[in-house]
Amino acid sequence: MYLAKVYITLKPTVNDPQGLTIKGALYTLGFAAVQEVRAGKYIEIKIEEKDMEKARNDVQNMCKKLLANTVIENFRFEMERLKSD
Amino acid sequence: MYLAKVYITLKPTVNDPQGLTIKGALYTLGFAAVQEVRAGKYIEIKIEEKDMEKARNDVQNMCKKLLANTVIENFRFEMERLKSD
Repeated sequence: MYLAKVYITLKPTVNDPQGLTIKGALYTLGFAAVQEVRAGKYIEIKIEEKDMEKARNDVQNMCKKLLANTVIENFRFEMERLKSD
Repeated sequence: MYLAKVYITLKPTVNDPQGLTIKGALYTLGFAAVQEVRAGKYIEIKIEEKDMEKARNDVQNMCKKLLANTVIENFRFEMERLKSD
């Protein structure tokens, strides 16, 4: 069993209205030192699979096919072996 | 200047309909080995601040006051010094 931790971020050139809104709210709360906020997604996926390479390959395909919009988003992920395996 | 990488996840006992929907979609796409999906948020914050401890403390407060709903969500974060500093 593996746990994949997937991080999906907007590409640097893409506008991030959610990030701008958070930045504005933080400024209002008194956090004036904040220069930039970028909002992304974090997804944890548990996979019942013995072979690390197969699991890694699966996660890569999940990101390309469903989780990330590769036109405007980047993704990266880490694999972690779970003890139950 | 510091970059804070903030990870916000639902607490383990909290229902995650978004994660369930992703799991269902992955299953439909043929990824039958997926056991569980939990969806969370990933936020990058750039802070103009010299003092690491002050910056860390600020991010902790940002999470508590705005970024995370601590009733149903956990948060953790990492600080990274940016080269421009």
